[in-house]
Amino acid sequence: MIICKVIGHVWATKKEPRLEGLKLMVVQEEGTEKQTHVAADVVGAGIGEQVLVVSGSTARSIFRERMDGQVPTDMAIVGIIDSLEIDPTAK
Amino acid sequence: MIICKVIGHVWATKKEPRLEGLKLMVVQEEGTEKQTHVAADVVGAGIGEQVLVVSGSTARSIFRERMDGQVPTDMAIVGIIDSLEIDPTAK
Amino acid sequence: MIICKVIGHVWATKKEPRLEGLKLMVVQEEGTEKQTHVAADVVGAGIGEQVLVVSGSTARSIFRERMDGQVPTDMAIVGIIDSLEIDPTAK
Amino acid sequence: MIICKVIGHVWATKKEPRLEGLKLMVVQEEGTEKQTHVAADVVGAGIGEQVLVVSGSTARSIFRERMDGQVPTDMAIVGIIDSLEIDPTAK
Amino acid sequence: MIICKVIGHVWATKKEPRLEGLKLMVVQEEGTEKQTHVAADVVGAGIGEQVLVVSGSTARSIFRERMDGQVPTDMAIVGIIDSLEIDPTAK
Repeated sequence: MIICKVIGHVWATKKEPRLEGLKLMVVQEEGTEKQTHVAADVVGAGIGEQVLVVSGSTARSIFRERMDGQVPTDMAIVGIIDSLEIDPTAK
Repeated sequence: MIICKVIGHVWATKKEPRLEGLKLMVVQEEGTEKQTHVAADVVGAGIGEQVLVVSGSTARSIFRERMDGQVPTDMAIVGIIDSLEIDPTAK
Repeated sequence: MIICKVIGHVWATKKEPRLEGLKLMVVQEEGTEKQTHVAADVVGAGIGEQVLVVSGSTARSIFRERMDGQVPTDMAIVGIIDSLEIDPTAK
Repeated sequence: MIICKVIGHVWATKKEPRLEGLKLMVVQEEGTEKQTHVAADVVGAGIGEQVLVVSGSTARSIFRERMDGQVPTDMAIVGIIDSLEIDPTAK
Repeated sequence: MIICKVIGHVWATKKEPRLEGLKLMVVQEEGTEKQTHVAADVVGAGIGEQVLVVSGSTARSIFRERMDGQVPTDMAIVGIIDSLEIDPTAK
């Protein structure tokens, strides 16, 4: 998983039918990379929150279990981070 | 998913038979990376449009459902972006 | 697999139900990249330890075998490194 | 898919038995990255040609259909590019 | 596949039980990146040798066929390179 911050929303009227109803959010990777991705949200994340994001077939597996069907996303927000405890001496 | 802009077309006469009939478009990642990829289009995207692109087995899963068969692509355009709302204070 | 150092913990109350009970640790890639990830721990790794981390569907496969179910993680700590022997002449 | 140029061949006598008989070619990514990979060729590509390359489980799926078995490659050349039409105003 | 050089060994006593008995080697990517990974060896590679390395579910598929079970690795050495023939005019 990667740690991201939710920074926005994306709207697409013309899309793969099975993406219908998904909340698609723009997330930005924390750390040195700062890359931007679009992830489907399943935990009710809001703008500005720090979240856990999974990629690839793992993102798809969430919807397979929840909706008993294929949802063509390769990224999903799976948790809202309450706290992050980094040991400075371990780095 | 990544946010890309459609910048061109690619033609290949000699190819894997199961790629036959696919519309293959050249897309460029938005943001700092600007990498170029080739993605199969299923939503009717045009040159210059901002699109949502999925990768890996997720791209393949789209065609499995649609055509009941294996299509050997690892990238697909799944949505045309109408609007992108980024919160400047969240970044 | 990548070689990482465990540098912290992450807590998320609001999360995908099937992540419940997993120990999620912050790991930092060794080497030039130094990227930070979050991985589910199955071997009892502690802060400061050097570990082996797997990604993608491989991480998920571990939980499929262990818990007979889908766990939506795309990264897992699968070993604690005792020693790493690099041949300086081979580099 | 990524756009690569075929730049060489690779020979390996000692290898996974199921790689036997595959034509393994060295390909170089076009664009800014210029990374080098080894891909199994299924379309008869030659040195200097621009090709379409798929990665991951998609590469493996090609051989599953063709040879009814597992071929342990994670990269395959699936098309020879005839022409690439990039719109300069779209970039 | 990527071209790597075998540069070392890694030992881990505390590990996922299904990694037991695997020979885990430290490999370094050739080319500009020089990233270090840990790969399971199935071809008897030695320190200093140039090898072909597969990633992701492809690495896991090798062990599924060989040992009829899941081995949680996402990287495997599948060939020892005898020779690499790069056409300088093609680059």
